[in-house]
Amino acid sequence: MIHLESDYNNGAHEAVLRNFLETNAERTQSYGDDRFSEQARTLIREACKAPDAQIWFLAGGTQTNATIIDCVLQPYEGVLCAETAHINVHEAGAVEFTGHKVITLPAHEGKLAVRDLQEWLKAYFADETAEHMVRPGMVYITFPTELGTLYTADELKALHDVCRQYGLLLYVDGARLAYGLAASKDVTLPLLAQIADIFYIGGTKCGALCGEAVVFPHGDAPGHMLSRIKRHGALLAKSRVVGVQFEALFTKDEGEPLYMSIGTKAVVLAMRLRRLFVEQLGYKPFIDSPTNQQFYIIPNDDLTRLHQHIGFEVWCPVDERHTACRFVTSWATTDDEIDTLEQVLSV
Amino acid sequence: MIHLESDYNNGAHEAVLRNFLETNAERTQSYGDDRFSEQARTLIREACKAPDAQIWFLAGGTQTNATIIDCVLQPYEGVLCAETAHINVHEAGAVEFTGHKVITLPAHEGKLAVRDLQEWLKAYFADETAEHMVRPGMVYITFPTELGTLYTADELKALHDVCRQYGLLLYVDGARLAYGLAASKDVTLPLLAQIADIFYIGGTKCGALCGEAVVFPHGDAPGHMLSRIKRHGALLAKSRVVGVQFEALFTKDEGEPLYMSIGTKAVVLAMRLRRLFVEQLGYKPFIDSPTNQQFYIIPNDDLTRLHQHIGFEVWCPVDERHTACRFVTSWATTDDEIDTLEQVLSV
Amino acid sequence: MIHLESDYNNGAHEAVLRNFLETNAERTQSYGDDRFSEQARTLIREACKAPDAQIWFLAGGTQTNATIIDCVLQPYEGVLCAETAHINVHEAGAVEFTGHKVITLPAHEGKLAVRDLQEWLKAYFADETAEHMVRPGMVYITFPTELGTLYTADELKALHDVCRQYGLLLYVDGARLAYGLAASKDVTLPLLAQIADIFYIGGTKCGALCGEAVVFPHGDAPGHMLSRIKRHGALLAKSRVVGVQFEALFTKDEGEPLYMSIGTKAVVLAMRLRRLFVEQLGYKPFIDSPTNQQFYIIPNDDLTRLHQHIGFEVWCPVDERHTACRFVTSWATTDDEIDTLEQVLSV
Amino acid sequence: MIHLESDYNNGAHEAVLRNFLETNAERTQSYGDDRFSEQARTLIREACKAPDAQIWFLAGGTQTNATIIDCVLQPYEGVLCAETAHINVHEAGAVEFTGHKVITLPAHEGKLAVRDLQEWLKAYFADETAEHMVRPGMVYITFPTELGTLYTADELKALHDVCRQYGLLLYVDGARLAYGLAASKDVTLPLLAQIADIFYIGGTKCGALCGEAVVFPHGDAPGHMLSRIKRHGALLAKSRVVGVQFEALFTKDEGEPLYMSIGTKAVVLAMRLRRLFVEQLGYKPFIDSPTNQQFYIIPNDDLTRLHQHIGFEVWCPVDERHTACRFVTSWATTDDEIDTLEQVLSV
Repeated sequence: MIHLESDYNNGAHEAVLRNFLETNAERTQSYGDDRFSEQARTLIREACKAPDAQIWFLAGGTQTNATIIDCVLQPYEGVLCAETAHINVHEAGAVEFTGHKVITLPAHEGKLAVRDLQEWLKAYFADETAEHMVRPGMVYITFPTELGTLYTADELKALHDVCRQYGLLLYVDGARLAYGLAASKDVTLPLLAQIADIFYIGGTKCGALCGEAVVFPHGDAPGHMLSRIKRHGALLAKSRVVGVQFEALFTKDEGEPLYMSIGTKAVVLAMRLRRLFVEQLGYKPFIDSPTNQQFYIIPNDDLTRLHQHIGFEVWCPVDERHTACRFVTSWATTDDEIDTLEQVLSV
Repeated sequence: MIHLESDYNNGAHEAVLRNFLETNAERTQSYGDDRFSEQARTLIREACKAPDAQIWFLAGGTQTNATIIDCVLQPYEGVLCAETAHINVHEAGAVEFTGHKVITLPAHEGKLAVRDLQEWLKAYFADETAEHMVRPGMVYITFPTELGTLYTADELKALHDVCRQYGLLLYVDGARLAYGLAASKDVTLPLLAQIADIFYIGGTKCGALCGEAVVFPHGDAPGHMLSRIKRHGALLAKSRVVGVQFEALFTKDEGEPLYMSIGTKAVVLAMRLRRLFVEQLGYKPFIDSPTNQQFYIIPNDDLTRLHQHIGFEVWCPVDERHTACRFVTSWATTDDEIDTLEQVLSV
Repeated sequence: MIHLESDYNNGAHEAVLRNFLETNAERTQSYGDDRFSEQARTLIREACKAPDAQIWFLAGGTQTNATIIDCVLQPYEGVLCAETAHINVHEAGAVEFTGHKVITLPAHEGKLAVRDLQEWLKAYFADETAEHMVRPGMVYITFPTELGTLYTADELKALHDVCRQYGLLLYVDGARLAYGLAASKDVTLPLLAQIADIFYIGGTKCGALCGEAVVFPHGDAPGHMLSRIKRHGALLAKSRVVGVQFEALFTKDEGEPLYMSIGTKAVVLAMRLRRLFVEQLGYKPFIDSPTNQQFYIIPNDDLTRLHQHIGFEVWCPVDERHTACRFVTSWATTDDEIDTLEQVLSV
Repeated sequence: MIHLESDYNNGAHEAVLRNFLETNAERTQSYGDDRFSEQARTLIREACKAPDAQIWFLAGGTQTNATIIDCVLQPYEGVLCAETAHINVHEAGAVEFTGHKVITLPAHEGKLAVRDLQEWLKAYFADETAEHMVRPGMVYITFPTELGTLYTADELKALHDVCRQYGLLLYVDGARLAYGLAASKDVTLPLLAQIADIFYIGGTKCGALCGEAVVFPHGDAPGHMLSRIKRHGALLAKSRVVGVQFEALFTKDEGEPLYMSIGTKAVVLAMRLRRLFVEQLGYKPFIDSPTNQQFYIIPNDDLTRLHQHIGFEVWCPVDERHTACRFVTSWATTDDEIDTLEQVLSV
């Protein structure tokens, strides 16, 4: 049985666990001032080529989105996103809980179109009743998206330009950033750090037990972030729990941070899976995803057989005889697992 | 240098780390449905002799307090506590962030007096303008308190009875519960599970890297807790991160859960510290604490010397020549450290 | 100059002012317990044929929507509405300010389609991840809609049935209820009181200086409404300010409450306007509205001339040579004004 | 029967009603842009000698406090006040509903002591854990206080200086400002406009049907106030309802705004009441109040007799044989009423 249900059905990368063991005896400061968090920040700044970056470590993705969005928006501002965005669909209203409206635009394979954004903003600012409406304060995108797709560097730059033009912040949810960076042809951490006002480097789905690193690459976070984060219940007393993990993830491993090689490995395996499904089994992609989340249209007759060998998630019905399914690789997926899959399914 | 600044300046108990290593290869469900969380719940129910208990695992203490208080209170209700209570002082307004008032009563060495509570409630319900005031919905206490002191079983029962009489919930913040149970003469986990409507078993300060176990001992949590917790940003996707730790902490170690022996060890060392400070060095206790937090009145002239050997926290000035200081033992404090301290300070 | 910009550009109906004068010397209770509010409640219950109805008086429409929606929803619930709904567009995020998501469905001339609602609810409750999404707790509709259109009695019943099936509350925003009731062929106050779980009878736009009457026709409002309303800042100390007005509006005037004749008069004048615009001036309706809000497609060349005689609101561009405009009659519009308009425009 | 239960048990001053009648036919802008609100602002600026003042009109006192406090505080800030303050006791948690902590200091006959404030702020800013606590952002006082007492000009200046020193805003709740100004020896509207960062001129209790005028005397309100106020549900569509009233209240009447003479009249009658109670009936003051709220210690044996002639409020028991009671005059109290009272009670 191979488990491709999600990228958070596993433990942690061995380098992460090893760092817990090696650092366990040390006594540290708390609330973010521990040596490991400091060192992790230094490594992340280097990887981002963003020496002024301010970095906070939070425990999980929904928490990070809701906390940071609330920290940087004015009270009367809302956040624009694609209608499929995680904050709009699968966060149980955590952003609205903080008092902010999530304003949706059409999604194009999970992506926000620059043109849609431009038109919406133009109409909003031309509207005489705009002051009676929620003011847009931020554009939220995910990289990769909830459907595994990626923005190109040009698309990110165009979104950035529109945000500048209208005075909005560009926030990038990087819950699966490792896999996005590995698959992208032109988006790198330093580029992201140039283009985004705020982004987070996802740990939970990319090798850590828990934890996300929020980056303000230009060093312009609002004041009193510790108090702001704490009132959201998102400040870890024993902050080393995330610091130790990001120190491990951003320590270099054969020339690049482990975080990068984690992403690369999962994407290579996802591409092997793709060849198996498309070329050998003849399934059609439901979404053309270059990252670790793969979506295929599976004949319903094949579902039982597949389930004998693979744990995966049924996404949605396509027609009466086909179902879209999601198969997710991660740092924890092994070459052996894909080998086995090729063997048992190719028969 | 011996570090007694806090009980969260350390890593995790070795049994916790070991469990991470041993379970790492396993693939699990998420959002609380993983095997480790399930097993930890079973062990906690046994330790509490509360077979109907509902249990959720959250990441930290402030998060737990704010989330759970908001989950169980009606919107127009507030929470009563001692004015020194953690939710009133050191949570950056996290409870108010959820829309609820924290209503304070006098603190007696960190404790809420039954008589004060009774009088306040009697006056509130007799007040003709009560509907214009925040209605009390819960009594919040800490066990042990922020000053290391403990309620006796009789005091807890009396608080419980007043809560029953007026229809309030009794919530016990057990951030340092291990140390409280170890030091108490008559309060046990099963007793707590009988008396409290809700309590949490602190992990972060008691051997875990992070994590608190919220217990509704009578199985009467409100519906849709997953959604409620998630909208607070407090639901961990990879829930095993806390489950694995509480499985380790509640696995029996020489007849009782490790959590108990962790508490006992720290309290024994705290008592050795006390003898050293009081009997040998002649310092007076600032608060008479039987638990792992010890507070002494230190002559200012001694501060420098103490700081050479011990990391500790300055609490508050007492008079012009004396300062109250806090010394905290934990599961991570060793006999050797106290031995050394005795040697260097007794000279 | 005839003012058709809105139905809140005026003072109050003379009967309302007269009641202020006649009652001014009387001393009353406050916070809703005054004699005038009591009498207004009695009159409204009679007009609704809802003897068990609970009624609260608030000051304005956005306040009423946000307060009441928050009072009746569970914290983790959201409110479903058409994307053109007032709560979604023109309330500056007041519902989200209370922590609830506004979930939008397509609008059909301002109306929510039963079929859309049914499909959305079916999909939501079939979704395995539903607990991670905001749970629908209420359907919000406006009668008449923001575009002046009306639901038929059958449509309202069908919405009510879907709400029952899925356990949702049906809430009707009646900011312009007088005009809707006057124009509807089959919806009456008693019918509304049967079908809706909660609705409000708009005063501000229908003859009052301010004030809306929130009706729970089945007497099943949640407890502690006074406290709930007050914490939203929506409880009037001198509650008679709205009570006196609704007493006047629901006092019978030639056999029916004044509120009804106010609506009828404005709708009659709106229909005269329609004949003038459509039959004599040859304008096309932008929306086919039977109520006091009329929308026409005006050739841009005519705009200046119209503006010389009428105050009205530009709604949106239709094409390069035409603009949709809104003309609103109210209780304050007079026959003379429409006579004059016919004269000056027919030339 | 003379009604001295409260200063909101009445209708409106006849000049207010008259202005409604005289302006009723006029068509106006809405949402604060109406001619009457504009004129009222001009009159208030003159009365305050504050030409740069920004002024908003809201409907009621609790609404005003919660809305404005939330508008000007940073999210992580709280508001300091006396423990008897209206926002702390009788607003059903409306401030906490907006996410801010109300931080209490001792009350001295309803007043905040400069010394207490200074000491608290000194301790807060010296505390190393301050970032984990709610940051003070504002000092809230009432003029007059809930107990009818007044700050002197010197006391207000001292509070202002402390606020400056620590970067806090000074906010004055003037629900009964007319009566405070009338009774004060040295506090005038222009002085208040110099000293306070924000204050509100209470209408509901001082001659209006409803409405409070919020003044930012130095013209430094945060941006987007319309949106901010609207998301609190506090923006009146038909804003003239308050504008018309404040236009009447600030129109000059024998040399000074009507608002001033309203206050003076009520205070003169309160002083007559005082002489009657203290000198003729021999009652002792419970609080030494110079304003329209009078508190006396009444022998329980006299309560029935008093209740035959006066409507008043029982405040609290004093001892077994005495009760503190509140007697409130207002603009609506008449000389005749006090004459009658003197007659029937002196017998």
